[in-house]
Amino acid sequence: MRLVVMGATRYAPDVLPYNIHHVAIAVEDLDAALDGFRTLYNVEPLSREIVADQAVEEAMIAVGGSHIQILQATEADSPVGRFVERNGEGLHHIAFAVVDIDAALEHLRAEGARLIDEKPRTGGGGHKIAFVHPKETAGTLIELVEVGHE
Amino acid sequence: MRLVVMGATRYAPDVLPYNIHHVAIAVEDLDAALDGFRTLYNVEPLSREIVADQAVEEAMIAVGGSHIQILQATEADSPVGRFVERNGEGLHHIAFAVVDIDAALEHLRAEGARLIDEKPRTGGGGHKIAFVHPKETAGTLIELVEVGHE
Repeated sequence: MRLVVMGATRYAPDVLPYNIHHVAIAVEDLDAALDGFRTLYNVEPLSREIVADQAVEEAMIAVGGSHIQILQATEADSPVGRFVERNGEGLHHIAFAVVDIDAALEHLRAEGARLIDEKPRTGGGGHKIAFVHPKETAGTLIELVEVGHE
Repeated sequence: MRLVVMGATRYAPDVLPYNIHHVAIAVEDLDAALDGFRTLYNVEPLSREIVADQAVEEAMIAVGGSHIQILQATEADSPVGRFVERNGEGLHHIAFAVVDIDAALEHLRAEGARLIDEKPRTGGGGHKIAFVHPKETAGTLIELVEVGHE
């Protein structure tokens, strides 16, 4: 972890989340959820894809500089399927955009954080992603998404 | 609701959320949550205040173009206090920035959406805010925050 002190601002570009990439909502019915957001907030998904590795179909709605991700499980016995079964529809995780996911995971590991993914895997949009256990940050599941210069 | 069709893009500036203003996490211990985010993600709160009307102490952490809001109830018998008692710590709501909260509420009312606040009230940072019932959008509590030209 490189840490460059600039006045009162700590700047560690390799590990810092530089944006909220998305906020994810787990749903029973992706089409119904998209209809609700469309009708009430006049927003449309930019993309929609099945991510087999996570057993989800996901849609990304851009809102300003970030996205809302709507997730529907493709299998009941999957993390998102079990979440919806247990909790009903609702907020599922926050994803941070990072420049270097390997450096970010190394930093988290050095801090003793419990990782769900020790190594990055491929998520929606072909990005390298990894999840950090919710017990580390106020009961909130955090995803890291590597988004470099595009 | 004014709707200007520009090619495939629908643009309704009075009612459209133009950004995710913040994503809120309800916690038992605000200091502990801020310590966790600071240690793992090198982020610091920009502001911290008590919003008596909502019976919360809240801190805002800027991440890129949006914020994470950490909420701790100041009274157990309050919406956030009851949420944490029932669910434990975790994601609580998404807030959309809008230009004209009155126009946005009028649009939502015309669409038959169930509003928690029929009229705006004053929230953190002195902004006009209003909550929309989670049953309208995939079990997700939505807050509107009027953020004009600043």
